[in-house]
Amino acid sequence: MFAVEVRDHVMIAHSFKGELFGPAQALHGATFVIDAAFLAETLDENGVVIDIGRAHEALKQVLEPLNYKNLDAMPEFAGVNTTTEFLTKHIHDHLARSARDDRLGRPGSELSAIRVTISESHVARAWYEAGI
Amino acid sequence: MFAVEVRDHVMIAHSFKGELFGPAQALHGATFVIDAAFLAETLDENGVVIDIGRAHEALKQVLEPLNYKNLDAMPEFAGVNTTTEFLTKHIHDHLARSARDDRLGRPGSELSAIRVTISESHVARAWYEAGI
Amino acid sequence: MFAVEVRDHVMIAHSFKGELFGPAQALHGATFVIDAAFLAETLDENGVVIDIGRAHEALKQVLEPLNYKNLDAMPEFAGVNTTTEFLTKHIHDHLARSARDDRLGRPGSELSAIRVTISESHVARAWYEAGI
Amino acid sequence: MFAVEVRDHVMIAHSFKGELFGPAQALHGATFVIDAAFLAETLDENGVVIDIGRAHEALKQVLEPLNYKNLDAMPEFAGVNTTTEFLTKHIHDHLARSARDDRLGRPGSELSAIRVTISESHVARAWYEAGI
Amino acid sequence: MFAVEVRDHVMIAHSFKGELFGPAQALHGATFVIDAAFLAETLDENGVVIDIGRAHEALKQVLEPLNYKNLDAMPEFAGVNTTTEFLTKHIHDHLARSARDDRLGRPGSELSAIRVTISESHVARAWYEAGI
Amino acid sequence: MFAVEVRDHVMIAHSFKGELFGPAQALHGATFVIDAAFLAETLDENGVVIDIGRAHEALKQVLEPLNYKNLDAMPEFAGVNTTTEFLTKHIHDHLARSARDDRLGRPGSELSAIRVTISESHVARAWYEAGI
Repeated sequence: MFAVEVRDHVMIAHSFKGELFGPAQALHGATFVIDAAFLAETLDENGVVIDIGRAHEALKQVLEPLNYKNLDAMPEFAGVNTTTEFLTKHIHDHLARSARDDRLGRPGSELSAIRVTISESHVARAWYEAGI
Repeated sequence: MFAVEVRDHVMIAHSFKGELFGPAQALHGATFVIDAAFLAETLDENGVVIDIGRAHEALKQVLEPLNYKNLDAMPEFAGVNTTTEFLTKHIHDHLARSARDDRLGRPGSELSAIRVTISESHVARAWYEAGI
Repeated sequence: MFAVEVRDHVMIAHSFKGELFGPAQALHGATFVIDAAFLAETLDENGVVIDIGRAHEALKQVLEPLNYKNLDAMPEFAGVNTTTEFLTKHIHDHLARSARDDRLGRPGSELSAIRVTISESHVARAWYEAGI
Repeated sequence: MFAVEVRDHVMIAHSFKGELFGPAQALHGATFVIDAAFLAETLDENGVVIDIGRAHEALKQVLEPLNYKNLDAMPEFAGVNTTTEFLTKHIHDHLARSARDDRLGRPGSELSAIRVTISESHVARAWYEAGI
Repeated sequence: MFAVEVRDHVMIAHSFKGELFGPAQALHGATFVIDAAFLAETLDENGVVIDIGRAHEALKQVLEPLNYKNLDAMPEFAGVNTTTEFLTKHIHDHLARSARDDRLGRPGSELSAIRVTISESHVARAWYEAGI
Repeated sequence: MFAVEVRDHVMIAHSFKGELFGPAQALHGATFVIDAAFLAETLDENGVVIDIGRAHEALKQVLEPLNYKNLDAMPEFAGVNTTTEFLTKHIHDHLARSARDDRLGRPGSELSAIRVTISESHVARAWYEAGI
């Protein structure tokens, strides 16, 4: 299995509902450094999984609506805890749609899976991996 | 598959038995930077795999008996080489027990696996991944 | 010149005033990974600048009032832009006071300077260095 | 599953053929930081997957013919795009041969797979994982 | 003293003249990860050294003519060894000119110095620091 | 001011004397990742501070007597606490002697200073900088 992975980041505010979260129930924020990995069984005729430049653009496009936002105020996230784990799947699902819609410069059917890793600090991160 | 991963470290002394180890047969030491990843198919009702704070505590608890120790002098490790690989499984097994005993804030049966990665320097690391 | 440096982090929300900041004028957030370095011309009788454990505690104490907070809502920061640069000096000044009050386990007069570095992402950081 | 992973690097020149690559069609270069991970279901009688020193040597040996080279001028790579992905498999295949030939200090049949990760910058990397 | 530092990278080919360089006399290449730090005694009225977004743009503009190039073929570098150290000063000098020409969003006279650090691998880097 | 910096590491055991050190009074160990920076006002005729390969060798030579050792058992360190800070100066002094003896491939008189940084974990490091 081959993979290419690219990195970008967003800076967001949010709060969590649930005693579990302790002080993180208050409005706070995070820099999320995001690694998006695209997996494929084979390389294409150019010798790549997908073009790294294209991968960077695809990730940037998915992140733009989140960057410099208070996630609590976005209708899209009403009633959900925008935890690091939740956001890994949110980003995955948007990238998977790009893949299925053949917007990554390679037929989505030739990609096996996408893994999204979010580092929220130097001591904690989360990831989500699933098929296209 | 979702995962959350937390980081901590210990500073230990030990030595190895076996010609394979060359100069590392002498008493020496290491800083082990440990990443413990908890994997699950689904998020719980709070939107997490397990709480990151709880994960940090669980890892800290497992590491405490090792920190600032000479592993050669611990009866628990008598007769074994406490290699980086060996210790990844040692830490995994303790964390898996915490999971099975439902001490991670989520039923252990809802977790799929635990992966423990130990970085012993900027150029070498080891990991162990297995079910709960 | 000797230095010891320790690392911790906070997760905060804030917004900026001024056209310069573009989209960062909106409420957003950041994980600030903070390195606090203590500088001294000589080591003490134990062979340290200051004890690393004590340095970690001193930094943690300064960071606690900031962690999981919306800085916009803290009276202490009313009317100021809590930029990364601003916060490096804020943390420096609190650590310098700890040093002057001899709360670091070594007379503050034996320390030369403190440097505080804040990494706000994998591509941007700021620092402030000044005497005690 | 256990793994040990070691790191080394090469500094090479090359160019790519294909409009997909845009400015990277010109002769340029890269520092490739390479992580080679060896996976095994069990530890050997010494308590290791394979010796970390031996792993470093094996990787160094595979990288030596590439280091400080213009890959475009190597007959071995005539007519292929030496993309980061392509090189992960190239290095994997050489390491797998070392394993099959029992040159890693442990019978290759006791190893399950090898994963080679190449970081080409602080924001992009690729990997390839396959059996021996 | 305050500083803000931003990161970007280029991927170049080049060769060196001089026996000192051994195998690096051959055409090879490098990923240079570049950190550009801007130093100032005081913050401006917005609370920044210079805007981080503007700093990123200024660095990107200086790097663009180098990216995906064979430095040996650039008239600007004829007859010089484009070592990592040499390039730190090259980038510094261009950024310093931007500062003097007041193209960084703050009068250059209010900046004290610029430090450019180039990491060429995980085990080697160089930097150059000088006034505006 | 120019600088080149190279990285290597050692894995040692030791213990500390003094209540200040708490649990670190027991025999334990550390991986010390060491960065040695060589500073100079000017580049030499090759365009370097000193050759990076030579810098790596010089550092390796200084570290070799420490690697895989119990520092408590080395007569050289009898009666001293081999703290991270202490070792930064120990390594500095050996490198400075190499420079003064013109064993770095450039007259020591053309070097301004040497800075040695030791990272003992992902959250703590120390450095020492002084003239040749």
